[in-house]
Amino acid sequence: MPERLGPPAETPLFQRLAIIGFGLIGSSLARAVRHLRIAREIVAIDQSPAVLERIEALGLADRATGDAREGVTGADFVILCVPVGAYSALAECIASNLEPGTILSDVGSVKGSVIRQVEPHLPAGVHFVPAHPVAGTEYSGPDAGFATLFLNRWCILTPPDGADAQAIEKVRQFWSALGSNVEIMTAQHHDLVLAITSHVPHLIAYNIVGTAADLETVTQSEVIKFSAGGFRDFTRIAASDPTMWRDVFLHNKDAVLEMLGRLNEDIALLARAIRWGEGDKLFDLFTRTRAIRRGIISLGQETAEPDFGRRRETP
Amino acid sequence: MPERLGPPAETPLFQRLAIIGFGLIGSSLARAVRHLRIAREIVAIDQSPAVLERIEALGLADRATGDAREGVTGADFVILCVPVGAYSALAECIASNLEPGTILSDVGSVKGSVIRQVEPHLPAGVHFVPAHPVAGTEYSGPDAGFATLFLNRWCILTPPDGADAQAIEKVRQFWSALGSNVEIMTAQHHDLVLAITSHVPHLIAYNIVGTAADLETVTQSEVIKFSAGGFRDFTRIAASDPTMWRDVFLHNKDAVLEMLGRLNEDIALLARAIRWGEGDKLFDLFTRTRAIRRGIISLGQETAEPDFGRRRETP
Repeated sequence: MPERLGPPAETPLFQRLAIIGFGLIGSSLARAVRHLRIAREIVAIDQSPAVLERIEALGLADRATGDAREGVTGADFVILCVPVGAYSALAECIASNLEPGTILSDVGSVKGSVIRQVEPHLPAGVHFVPAHPVAGTEYSGPDAGFATLFLNRWCILTPPDGADAQAIEKVRQFWSALGSNVEIMTAQHHDLVLAITSHVPHLIAYNIVGTAADLETVTQSEVIKFSAGGFRDFTRIAASDPTMWRDVFLHNKDAVLEMLGRLNEDIALLARAIRWGEGDKLFDLFTRTRAIRRGIISLGQETAEPDFGRRRETP
Repeated sequence: MPERLGPPAETPLFQRLAIIGFGLIGSSLARAVRHLRIAREIVAIDQSPAVLERIEALGLADRATGDAREGVTGADFVILCVPVGAYSALAECIASNLEPGTILSDVGSVKGSVIRQVEPHLPAGVHFVPAHPVAGTEYSGPDAGFATLFLNRWCILTPPDGADAQAIEKVRQFWSALGSNVEIMTAQHHDLVLAITSHVPHLIAYNIVGTAADLETVTQSEVIKFSAGGFRDFTRIAASDPTMWRDVFLHNKDAVLEMLGRLNEDIALLARAIRWGEGDKLFDLFTRTRAIRRGIISLGQETAEPDFGRRRETP
């Protein structure tokens, strides 16, 4: 597994890349594209003046603008890195400034809704290749990004029916250059897979942290002190960006509710096993789940160090 | 916050410490007690010949035996480090070999059941001071232990009514010497607090990993590949020791079922908010939960590094 990014490209894949939205993902993309010279020029677009200032200060792009229409003009590659609830309005806004031949992509965590929001606005000759890099941290904003965020992670492309083969290939090359493994699937399957591997875990984490905060018999200070017993692992993903996650749940409603329903059925079985003292059922499940953890570690998607390699002091 | 263990004690707190059960916790205790010279002599007791061999090979104790009765004889401090389902039989077995004045303690994750199991067997003059160090990793066995496991963690003592004040004070000193913060509460309150900060999070993690493994539309390989989206955080605690956790759930049934019930009510509300597109409710919860994370980090119970400080390669 590569430990670092490869050498810069000899010929840039794109002439002008416009990145709309400079949060964790957008700013990480800019850093990596710069470092690897994947595009000759980067145009940064963000509606927040504070973010535009940080982009300038950090030197993340060749130029930065708050005007999305103007920013995408002349770009041969445009990537949407905004919360998925904003896609429809954004696509409508920039559509007439996208030139034929431009590739439009994104990094949204849901894909079916993204396609439904963007496609109606697409001018002829603009190629839409939705993408989802399965990578992130619990921090947000342009300062939180880093160039190796996508290294050894998966990026899923969900080209709609009839998408341009050359455009798909260029987006594949783009993510490969960033160090990602690229997989192609339908938007529908993506939304189901991500519901269980990402969306529902986030929802459960938000929920358990919220429930704990509301207890009247246990103080918040106790929850915090004794969190090393397991609870703190949940709080990391429950500290993720609220706007992004609100939009994910609203835009992948069906798959999330379906997976949540299954989870509830299974938890009812577990609760029943506890109530009736059926230790064997518990033991069997707890043994089975260890194997999945081993699979994740051996695929390089996780560290094998105990406790996530949290600082372990020497005596 | 201290980064390492203090200097060795000038006078050992105990003459002979007998540790029964040499898993992650028992072996970590032995390493720390040795390093800090908190007891003059350590007797290791484990029923597994393979574990006894590792104890000898790693030099974790002054002597190791499979005979618990013989092992506790002459000890002034005995700590049970076995799964909580084994306490009653173990207490019955060793009771007549415990001398008056001996302090008996444990490290079990549930406390009400532990007291109910042990007290009926206690001979007169033996002081039972139950303890629960809130610390651990997902690994098990004598090789997984380390001396700083308890450093900057909390240890909860739950002395039963009428417990000997001097004995409580000695157990408090013992855990302080290991670098832990000691708190005293009733067994009943402990079981409620730990149900939400530890037991239910483990149950939920086991459950979601199990549900994911059972899906027919999503392959196990997809679950593993795309786990960086959040799922992998759950798999760590779902890789914890199956026997220990089976016993925890069976022995803290009431509090676990109560907390699970609350969690289910809250998740039903969230599901409803998703179904009806109530974005504000989601956003409010997701904002609230970030604060708890910050509390855990500022209390030194968690690292502030993104993504648990998982290896972040330089470009």
